Amino acid sequence: MVGGGQGAYIGNIHRISSRLDGAWQLVAGAFDVDAERGRAFALTQGIDPDRSYGDYKEMVAAELAREDRIDAVAICTPNFTHYPIARAFIEAGFDVICEKPITATLEDAVALEELTRESGRFVGVTYTYSGYPMVHEARKRVADGEIGRVRTVQVEYPLEWMATAIEHQGSAQASWRTDPKKNGRGGSIGDIGTHAYHLAGFVTGLKLKSLTADLSTFVEGRALDDNAHVMLRYEGGARGLLWSSQVALGNSNGVRLRVFGEKGSLSWFQEQPNELVLASLDGRTLIIKRGAEELSEDAKVRTRTPPGHPEGYLEAFANLYAGFAEAILARQSGRDPGPIGQNLPTAYDGLKGVAFVDAVVDSHEDANQPWLTPLAV
Amino acid sequence: MVGGGQGAYIGNIHRISSRLDGAWQLVAGAFDVDAERGRAFALTQGIDPDRSYGDYKEMVAAELAREDRIDAVAICTPNFTHYPIARAFIEAGFDVICEKPITATLEDAVALEELTRESGRFVGVTYTYSGYPMVHEARKRVADGEIGRVRTVQVEYPLEWMATAIEHQGSAQASWRTDPKKNGRGGSIGDIGTHAYHLAGFVTGLKLKSLTADLSTFVEGRALDDNAHVMLRYEGGARGLLWSSQVALGNSNGVRLRVFGEKGSLSWFQEQPNELVLASLDGRTLIIKRGAEELSEDAKVRTRTPPGHPEGYLEAFANLYAGFAEAILARQSGRDPGPIGQNLPTAYDGLKGVAFVDAVVDSHEDANQPWLTPLAV
Amino acid sequence: MVGGGQGAYIGNIHRISSRLDGAWQLVAGAFDVDAERGRAFALTQGIDPDRSYGDYKEMVAAELAREDRIDAVAICTPNFTHYPIARAFIEAGFDVICEKPITATLEDAVALEELTRESGRFVGVTYTYSGYPMVHEARKRVADGEIGRVRTVQVEYPLEWMATAIEHQGSAQASWRTDPKKNGRGGSIGDIGTHAYHLAGFVTGLKLKSLTADLSTFVEGRALDDNAHVMLRYEGGARGLLWSSQVALGNSNGVRLRVFGEKGSLSWFQEQPNELVLASLDGRTLIIKRGAEELSEDAKVRTRTPPGHPEGYLEAFANLYAGFAEAILARQSGRDPGPIGQNLPTAYDGLKGVAFVDAVVDSHEDANQPWLTPLAV
Amino acid sequence: MVGGGQGAYIGNIHRISSRLDGAWQLVAGAFDVDAERGRAFALTQGIDPDRSYGDYKEMVAAELAREDRIDAVAICTPNFTHYPIARAFIEAGFDVICEKPITATLEDAVALEELTRESGRFVGVTYTYSGYPMVHEARKRVADGEIGRVRTVQVEYPLEWMATAIEHQGSAQASWRTDPKKNGRGGSIGDIGTHAYHLAGFVTGLKLKSLTADLSTFVEGRALDDNAHVMLRYEGGARGLLWSSQVALGNSNGVRLRVFGEKGSLSWFQEQPNELVLASLDGRTLIIKRGAEELSEDAKVRTRTPPGHPEGYLEAFANLYAGFAEAILARQSGRDPGPIGQNLPTAYDGLKGVAFVDAVVDSHEDANQPWLTPLAV
Repeated sequence: MVGGGQGAYIGNIHRISSRLDGAWQLVAGAFDVDAERGRAFALTQGIDPDRSYGDYKEMVAAELAREDRIDAVAICTPNFTHYPIARAFIEAGFDVICEKPITATLEDAVALEELTRESGRFVGVTYTYSGYPMVHEARKRVADGEIGRVRTVQVEYPLEWMATAIEHQGSAQASWRTDPKKNGRGGSIGDIGTHAYHLAGFVTGLKLKSLTADLSTFVEGRALDDNAHVMLRYEGGARGLLWSSQVALGNSNGVRLRVFGEKGSLSWFQEQPNELVLASLDGRTLIIKRGAEELSEDAKVRTRTPPGHPEGYLEAFANLYAGFAEAILARQSGRDPGPIGQNLPTAYDGLKGVAFVDAVVDSHEDANQPWLTPLAV
Repeated sequence: MVGGGQGAYIGNIHRISSRLDGAWQLVAGAFDVDAERGRAFALTQGIDPDRSYGDYKEMVAAELAREDRIDAVAICTPNFTHYPIARAFIEAGFDVICEKPITATLEDAVALEELTRESGRFVGVTYTYSGYPMVHEARKRVADGEIGRVRTVQVEYPLEWMATAIEHQGSAQASWRTDPKKNGRGGSIGDIGTHAYHLAGFVTGLKLKSLTADLSTFVEGRALDDNAHVMLRYEGGARGLLWSSQVALGNSNGVRLRVFGEKGSLSWFQEQPNELVLASLDGRTLIIKRGAEELSEDAKVRTRTPPGHPEGYLEAFANLYAGFAEAILARQSGRDPGPIGQNLPTAYDGLKGVAFVDAVVDSHEDANQPWLTPLAV
Repeated sequence: MVGGGQGAYIGNIHRISSRLDGAWQLVAGAFDVDAERGRAFALTQGIDPDRSYGDYKEMVAAELAREDRIDAVAICTPNFTHYPIARAFIEAGFDVICEKPITATLEDAVALEELTRESGRFVGVTYTYSGYPMVHEARKRVADGEIGRVRTVQVEYPLEWMATAIEHQGSAQASWRTDPKKNGRGGSIGDIGTHAYHLAGFVTGLKLKSLTADLSTFVEGRALDDNAHVMLRYEGGARGLLWSSQVALGNSNGVRLRVFGEKGSLSWFQEQPNELVLASLDGRTLIIKRGAEELSEDAKVRTRTPPGHPEGYLEAFANLYAGFAEAILARQSGRDPGPIGQNLPTAYDGLKGVAFVDAVVDSHEDANQPWLTPLAV
Repeated sequence: MVGGGQGAYIGNIHRISSRLDGAWQLVAGAFDVDAERGRAFALTQGIDPDRSYGDYKEMVAAELAREDRIDAVAICTPNFTHYPIARAFIEAGFDVICEKPITATLEDAVALEELTRESGRFVGVTYTYSGYPMVHEARKRVADGEIGRVRTVQVEYPLEWMATAIEHQGSAQASWRTDPKKNGRGGSIGDIGTHAYHLAGFVTGLKLKSLTADLSTFVEGRALDDNAHVMLRYEGGARGLLWSSQVALGNSNGVRLRVFGEKGSLSWFQEQPNELVLASLDGRTLIIKRGAEELSEDAKVRTRTPPGHPEGYLEAFANLYAGFAEAILARQSGRDPGPIGQNLPTAYDGLKGVAFVDAVVDSHEDANQPWLTPLAV
């Protein structure tokens, strides 16, 4: 692991998730820009001090030299450092698991995606919400035509924790998220809007044709948007509305997706992730539960307990890690991955996310409010 | 009452609602374009046959000639006939209660609003959702600053019943709603989007500055939009997203409003209308119930039963009727209306609704996707 | 109407409900024990002063003498006066609509039920919750075998408003409810437990075999129970649990019924009355909405608006009034009543309710905690 | 670990949960009554073959002989074997984590609890629901007097999966649960009713005074109850109702607790475990979220992610494991355990559970329906 040291939020999530199913072991890391602090942290994680490194370059070199080298690296550093770190590991032949967004700039994203393709390395990107079993169930049902041709998609990701200027009150998490150099051009749209965009595309299988966007910054002095409204047009005629917000009081982590087709609709709400709500032309509303007999294999391989035993965010994240393990193992043994190693978010998804943010900001900044097509869709 | 005869949906709602609190009595009507059928219907309603008229012109003349003439007329005919009927009654000195939209064209709306102002007559427009007590409670709390300055508004009105081409399968209700001559230029945006727009403005007190819109028609052969996405900019910097749809399977009558301010947020969902959900900076979510002690007078005068005894659509509609009665009585006796006679939807709200639809359609039809300001806001 | 004057809660509910569908007209009444105050109140209701009476005896005599006499009387007085008033009207040949409980004592209930049977008069008892369309839908589905043989019933009626000693703080409503002379032997079990018991029996069609009960009085100084736990055994082997409480903070009017059968289950919650939740052996949960196409005639005749337009308590109460009207008209014209005039709560249901309360109190008071069978089931 | 081999449900849960926070490592086991199958399974778990044992006796002896012996054993075998296995480990000086119920008979439970006390060993019992952070929050708030003196407790644990005779259709899980020799005297009351009983006692701190119960067996041919109704009387005057069922269609794992006090109430529903619902005398309902600032230390130490990132069953189970680790470490180092090592379910809770089931069955079997006091409360 690179980054994710003492006090890091997402690094801890990666560690718990990788451990949950027993498929990964954390054996080496460069956890902190402060090498000393990083080493101290490594000790608390039971890492062999020989494999606790001062920085990622040292780590690449040293691991490459070992027989028992790592299988893959997890990159949990600030966005703008993802690219150089990922490149170093890929060029040394390692597989990569990278926090989203894959890079802070579109240029880097294009380069990293190209490098990935050419190198043949596996690069997984942690679009968490695509780890949830009921999201896979939704994807499968749409793909199987259960709701017919999709007409409109309503997707939102509202948050409340940045409703005041906490970036000036000591919140490191808020601080880098409001800094264009570290976060990229998008504020809420980059931090969470991309999750919403990925989720909508993942479930519907639709390709974006164009978008037009309206960004706002409600907290005074903030350099990036903290609220974004986007209208979407998909290829084939479907439409969408996307809302992301960091100032929506009352929303802890309100990812919500609703997909309306010709024959039915599907709704999923991340704060109640064990249910999928289906409606159909007959006027009935059906609640389908994680763990139910009728679910697809895609959902079943991503669940550990029977219906009624809530699984949540960590299990979804663990499903990504289990999937990455399976994808890598399958490639190593030259076989097709099992269902948990399929439909994973990879470098191209990462690129699509960054391209989306770029197009949103471009559309907003243009006085003519144009419909724009992202560079990659 | 004009219109609302045998088989009419909304006419029946007007009748039940006007009767509910005992403030109105239905004593005369021209219920049907087929005079014979109208008279037969009048009999079923216990109307004196002398006051069952062949058409609205006959009704205006005959009622004007009576000492015990009607106090006001309720207009429940198709949209494009509202204007001539309303004008005839207003010019004869009667007060008017008119179904929404107030007219089918912007031209008519402007004229009717002007006539209303000049005549001094009362013209109420049945924007039903502003009849709900918890909507008034929300309005009052926003006005009192409880959630601080408003930042963003998410409002939606999805419906499912027109998800297939029922206008070709004998549904009279769907038939006129998809006919530009009868419904006006807007499809879903005219039929229900205006409700959403009115509700958002009613609760927040915000004035629209501009909008940009994307309309779709998903059911083949339909002449008007059946799905609308609108981005809103309010004066003072607040933003909004509005979605209306007639093809959103799973939504019976899903009016939902969420208002996010600097200090808190308010959510109201029409299918659970007896609750108002408040969130504040402290991370707590509070459910406030219709009938609770702490509610404002505005809410209390619009409720008949204690908390836990659900009141719904008919009671909300009845609140409008009770309000119209109070407004008219107050004017007649030269006093200020009590709280139930205040904050009522009137001709100017009707005009704003029609102007909104016009701007939405204009924005959509213009290839440049401009931000437009409605004629009246 | 007898009782239900100025400030009365339930009298007003009766008036609104009887007016809602236009089938009844309030033309006479003895509204108050204070004749003067009663007459003043009658004026506010538009009653002909000639038909505003000092007491019920005067009313019986005077109405009997009129050609245009009332069709039926609604009794909205305190429980212990129901019997003499009902008897007077029945003996004079009038039909009766009586608030529940039908009487304050079992002796009176037996006598009134017998008188009703012998007289051939219609005596309706306002067990409100059996007026809800989705309760009728539930009843129909159980009767049709949709959930198979019933195994267990969980029914509860928790309230919060009497959680403190408001009977000593000026609440007239709480005062008579805590007075054994006025309310009868049961406190919460008599006031609301009977509603729960009736609802469970109404939906399941099950006959009670025996019960054992544990009553408590949590508010100091209260003479009657304010919390009741009852275990039920039905004929045929089904079991039930019933809870009623006047001190359950957080519950406005929390009537909830859950019926579990061999093939499925049905749940209904009064604070969300437009939905019926069905579960079946396949693990799916289905939400069925009031107004849906698939509903039974029993439900459809008790609804006025399409799905998504909430109907509530007043509409349910109005359904009872519409049903009473139909039952009386049908008898007058010698025909079978239509569906709205069927499955109505009548005198025998009233008797069952009083007998249930009596058995509950007997069981509780006996140190041996016996399983007892009510006098009428 | 003893038991929990190939195909075992609860063994897998123990393994995931112990791994989640990195505090435990699985290093030895006797996983199966079939020693061969057990060894094969051990390999899949990365266990050193030297430490994969044929049975628990072999394991006790061999581990005792090692320097790097296990810290504690997790017992995941059928109920009736818990006692001899636990005794063997305790007598050899090991700490124990035991699935609930602690034993199949009251006699064994008494003996095991006594042995635990005398040995000074730590014996944790996995009453899962007391691992949830919001359950700890509820306990703390009741203890702090936030809802005042408790009046009534409504607790239920309905399940649906045994609604048909799946024990005769190849379900091993259902088979031992319906076998009195393996499960003990209680069916649903023993398997899940004890969870409900423990949860109610844990949150309220109340001590049971007496109970009376009504058991049913709805699935033909079943030897134990599959539905239980219990009325509870606590010391100090509080009352309770407890319902457990294995045949309640529609309930996946419907653990629900509601506690009503003089000043407020608390509700928690296991299928939405990240929320705690509070009501108070002011008529407001408050939703408190896991992860919120205002939560107690007790809740905070049992949570890993911010509000809105659902944690569930596995995290709750992991909290027990984290607590057991802390309790054992604290004892080893002679210090008081931190908050996560406090309020843990131990041998005495296990005994109370078994004593409760015994009293329930005794009460039911006695024709006089007596109020009985369990042997330990």
